[in-house]
Parts: sequence; C-alpha cells; structure tokens
Amino acid sequence: MDAGRKDIDALIDLMAKLPGLGPRSARRAVLHLIKKRERLMSPLADAMKSVAENARECVKCGNIGTGTICDICASEKRATGEICIVEDVADLWAMERAAVFRGRYHVLGGTLSALDAIGPEELRIPLLISRVRDEGVTEIILALNATIDGQTTAHYIADELAGACTVTSLAQGVPIGGELDYLDDGTITAALNARKGF
Amino acid sequence: MDAGRKDIDALIDLMAKLPGLGPRSARRAVLHLIKKRERLMSPLADAMKSVAENARECVKCGNIGTGTICDICASEKRATGEICIVEDVADLWAMERAAVFRGRYHVLGGTLSALDAIGPEELRIPLLISRVRDEGVTEIILALNATIDGQTTAHYIADELAGACTVTSLAQGVPIGGELDYLDDGTITAALNARKGF
Ligand SMILES: [Zn+2]
Ligand SMILES: [Zn+2]
Repeated sequence: MDAGRKDIDALIDLMAKLPGLGPRSARRAVLHLIKKRERLMSPLADAMKSVAENARECVKCGNIGTGTICDICASEKRATGEICIVEDVADLWAMERAAVFRGRYHVLGGTLSALDAIGPEELRIPLLISRVRDEGVTEIILALNATIDGQTTAHYIADELAGACTVTSLAQGVPIGGELDYLDDGTITAALNARKGF
Repeated sequence: MDAGRKDIDALIDLMAKLPGLGPRSARRAVLHLIKKRERLMSPLADAMKSVAENARECVKCGNIGTGTICDICASEKRATGEICIVEDVADLWAMERAAVFRGRYHVLGGTLSALDAIGPEELRIPLLISRVRDEGVTEIILALNATIDGQTTAHYIADELAGACTVTSLAQGVPIGGELDYLDDGTITAALNARKGF
C-alpha cells in the first residue's frame, strides 16, 4: 500500500467513529467524498476545521457558539426571566426549530445517573442554581427527556429550586420513553403550551 | 444567530450530503464532533483535506491512489496476466479485503445503461480493450454486480474480448440481485475459486 491508501484508510477509520456510521458506511462516504473532492470534500474539510477551531461552550448556558457567551444568552430579544432546561445541545436545537420558546436555556450536559455515578456536580446544576438566584428568573421550564434518568433529574432540580421560582415541565405530547430530539416541531409546541406545574 | 451558529449550520448541511446521513444524523454527527473537537474533529478535517488534495484516479485501472499509477498497478508482486473487472472502487476494495486475487484490476466506473444513456465510451471500456492488447493479458475475470446492468455489461465485454483472452466471471456465491460490496470475504473467495468460462 502506498501512502495514499494509508491516508484513505486513516480517513475511513476516523469517519467510522461518527455516530450512525460503521466501517462499511464510512467506506461508502469516503468514496463519495473522493468522487466529489472539489465540490464537497474540500469545503467539508474547511468547514470542519473552522468549527473545530472556533466552537466553544457558552459559559452561561452550555450552548455551542463561537464566543464566551452564545448568541441566545447575548440576545436582548430573549426573555431573561424564563430558562428552559435541556439535557444536551441537540435538545436545545430541537426547541429552537419549534421556534415557540422565547426565553433562554440551560444545557445540563446529561442527566443524573446513579449507575454511571453522575451527580449534580458532574452536570451544570450548581451553575443553574446560581443563575436562578442572580438573573431574576421567575420560571424554569423542564424540557428533559421522558426517560427514568431524565425524570429523576427533573425531580431533583424541582426540589432544589422549590421556593426560588416557578418550576414547570413540558407535558402533553412527550411520549413515555421518548427523546426530545426525535419529536416534530408541532409536538414540542403543544407540549410547551400545555406545560403544567411540576 | 452569530457567525458561529451559521458555520455550524453550514457544516451540518455539508455532512447531510454524505450517503446514509440525513439532516438529523448530520446534526448528531456534528455535535459529536464538536464534543470531541481535538481528538476527532481536527484530525478528521486534516485527513479529509489531505485526501482531497492528494487522491486521484490511477490512469491505468481507475483505482484511487496518490500517484499517476496506483499501488496495485505499480506493484511487481501482482500478476500482469490477469485483470479483474469491477464496477467501482468499493468493489475493488471488497476484492482486496478477501485477499484471494493476486492480479490487477480495471475499474469500469459504472455499468452500461440504456436508460441512463451510458455507453462503452462513458465507461473505462475502450481503455480495457487496449490494456488487454498491450499488457499480454491472458485472463479477464468479470467481477460485476449480479444486477441486470452488471450482467449486460459483462456480456458486452465478453463479446468485445472474444478471441483476445480467456474471459471468466465470478460464479458461485454471488446472490441474484446482490452487490459485491455487501458480500463477506468467504463468499467472494468461493466465487473466485469457482469461476467459470463466460
Ligand atoms: Zn448561552
Ligand atoms: Zn491502477
């Protein structure tokens, strides 16, 4: 094998580490990229490099952006009194696609899990508690996945914030065992509008 | 949206153009990359850039490599008298994984197709005919997919080369309607060993 084939194999191995791609689909993807190396592969490499160098977590909410503070936290158009709690950035994106929530977010970075020894300190929970205290938050909307760990986490946060602000949760429309990022925009909208005291 | 989010959206759009990835799996892949930007995203961008800049088709056989001539065509260890005909590079890779064929290859770049107006000139068929004439080829092994277009192409090539050399084809083990790149190595080995006159 010459250096070229080794480079291609290295690329396939890296591609195969992406979620949803195995060795076979990674090979297919790489061949497709090589066929379209000027119109797809080079722009993709450049876009990836740029995002790798510039993307960072917002120090306030955990969203992905390029600055210290993300565009949502920095926007004056977003209500400061309402914070929507999500497990990860994919869920924040799903909420934003529904375009129904006009407040701000807080990305936990996962859920509490006794099995995986993930406690509040491993998540962005202490930061949430200081945000509620410091930012004049009046309502926390729990938009966690309807899984056991998601609901355990929701209860924990509701207990911690009891008395500090109103705590609601997405209600109608989230199927049992379902994950937010799989829902259509209409379902998310309905669930937000029908939110209830937690 | 700040510039960062626009960059991320552009990256997601490019990723969604890969075979097997839709918008949702592209979003998941990009978030995964951002989480692992130093250990996965940067190396992947670099590997992609390098392959985009260096990969090219072998002028002889159509395989992908970095030089004008690929490593297989350049190797003195590969028999010059036998050429295995495949539709595309994925099939060549599948044959190489089986590690049973020690000759050289010829990548057609597709199959004849009346429907898509693909004739011999659109494929690497004229080049094959001159290779057989110039390289002292004694046997052509047809390893085309068992599809209607694949078999039409096989018959066309067999007719063109009648009298010039022995023409065989992979036989036993290739399922009807099956594609080479989906087969396991053992099946490919059995099919090659049981090849018959075409
Ligand atoms: Zn933020
Ligand atoms: Zn070659």
